[in-house]
Amino acid sequence: MPVEALKCKECGERYPLEAKFVCEHCFGPLEVAYDLSGLDPDETRRRIQSGPSTIWRYSDFLPFDRRPRTALAAGVTPLVRADRLAERLGIREVWVKNDAANPTHSFKDRVVTVALAKVRELGYRVVACASTGNLANAVAAHAAAAGLESYVFIPADLEEQKVLATGVYGTRLVAVRGSYDDVNRLCTQLSGERDWAFVNVNLRPYYAEGSKTIAFEVAEQLGFELPDRVVAPVASGSLFTKIARGFEEWLQVGLLSGDLPTFNGAQAEGCAPVASAFEAGRDVCRPVRFPDTIAKSLAIGDP
Amino acid sequence: MPVEALKCKECGERYPLEAKFVCEHCFGPLEVAYDLSGLDPDETRRRIQSGPSTIWRYSDFLPFDRRPRTALAAGVTPLVRADRLAERLGIREVWVKNDAANPTHSFKDRVVTVALAKVRELGYRVVACASTGNLANAVAAHAAAAGLESYVFIPADLEEQKVLATGVYGTRLVAVRGSYDDVNRLCTQLSGERDWAFVNVNLRPYYAEGSKTIAFEVAEQLGFELPDRVVAPVASGSLFTKIARGFEEWLQVGLLSGDLPTFNGAQAEGCAPVASAFEAGRDVCRPVRFPDTIAKSLAIGDP
Repeated sequence: MPVEALKCKECGERYPLEAKFVCEHCFGPLEVAYDLSGLDPDETRRRIQSGPSTIWRYSDFLPFDRRPRTALAAGVTPLVRADRLAERLGIREVWVKNDAANPTHSFKDRVVTVALAKVRELGYRVVACASTGNLANAVAAHAAAAGLESYVFIPADLEEQKVLATGVYGTRLVAVRGSYDDVNRLCTQLSGERDWAFVNVNLRPYYAEGSKTIAFEVAEQLGFELPDRVVAPVASGSLFTKIARGFEEWLQVGLLSGDLPTFNGAQAEGCAPVASAFEAGRDVCRPVRFPDTIAKSLAIGDP
Repeated sequence: MPVEALKCKECGERYPLEAKFVCEHCFGPLEVAYDLSGLDPDETRRRIQSGPSTIWRYSDFLPFDRRPRTALAAGVTPLVRADRLAERLGIREVWVKNDAANPTHSFKDRVVTVALAKVRELGYRVVACASTGNLANAVAAHAAAAGLESYVFIPADLEEQKVLATGVYGTRLVAVRGSYDDVNRLCTQLSGERDWAFVNVNLRPYYAEGSKTIAFEVAEQLGFELPDRVVAPVASGSLFTKIARGFEEWLQVGLLSGDLPTFNGAQAEGCAPVASAFEAGRDVCRPVRFPDTIAKSLAIGDP
């Protein structure tokens, strides 16, 4: 498999594929590095097409030495052609990627599937996350299916319906008195003290790789063709950038040809730190102190 | 295509494939009749495997002369292996068919997809149904995608969340003062007066065919093999019997071999007219006057 190492995004320092997310030298974030030069496009396409109907059909591009088997997977969700929306917009074709068809109804199933496969490979017994919604559901459900113990840290004032939806999977819900930022900080501290796998802290480099599979699926579902334009929501920006990365990798291998799509990021009016910075031509976001949007999954004021 | 006619379940009288659901001679219910004798198993399997990732891959077994194209489809939902449940039950393998991955999150997307394809073929402009939940969502969503006008009749005291979930698709919600039975009776009357397609009244013979696709998918996902046992919920009993019909048709064509699975029907304790009749060895159900269950989709007291 093409996966090679963890690599610092800033200084390029390399590390073995362990539960590590910060560079020891420059404190830059780590990501997974691959050597795709050995992949033949025809062979790779055949391997994809004969693979399972889950994200594991793309395991040449995921951080494992062999294709993992997981109790619950994700992906291969419908790409729905929306002709009436296209007509309304005055363009020829619009497709909607319906990731609500994932096991817990969001794209978080993709990233958690990858994180939990790594959790099992590394031998962790306990998996955890801080979340207020979709991630909590995904971690609780995939941990239950895998027979792993799980802890989900939530702000104590979270809505009852959300607590119920996550609790139904039998996870250990820990209510923390404080804001979501406080919960997150607690989890980062805990990840240093406990031998737990926090999917979006010490497992983050693997976790983030799962988002690329949306790009792979869209391209495959279009008949191994690139879309002209991609409109995707932006919260932390991780999904958005990983979709581009997915297309880049397939262009590099020769599974696709042509130019990268134009990318449009979508943010809520009441929480648009990235869109505002882009509009003003600034390189750094000004945090939104009080996000105000019904799109709770996009309410990250300081990405 | 093997589809032939509408046929009375009681007296066998045949009718053309129109919007008709009751026999003119004996008032028996009509169903779709096929002649499957011309289907070669190898050719049929290849046609299925090269078909779209929707129920339309099974159109040899659906009531159309050619494979329909619909704005929104359904089906090819995950069959999830549940090893921990199997262990708990003390058996070797358990699989769960996750039909929540359909566009509006229930198996009603299957039956409505088939009904709406027939609606368009027959040239109706307005589609309607009586419902209190899943069917309402499916009709509203598929009608919107197809650009058809739709009416959904609901009891006036329906919960606000359900009304919202259906209303979001832009259907015409008609609140009727009365019970669900009253709403249903009104729809049956209206289907005689208006030139509307009521998916589960005058379109019912086609609508019901959609349920067979669950059996087709399960068999295909198991590698063209029959399961030993099927556990399925029973409300009206239509889904339950059509799953068996699906397996029977594939056995007849030679796509499957072996014996039909054992079938277990599941009902709620607070609304079990079929289970009670079965237990008592009676051929006819005694209606449950006041269904009492949180499984609202199974709360049909007089199936």
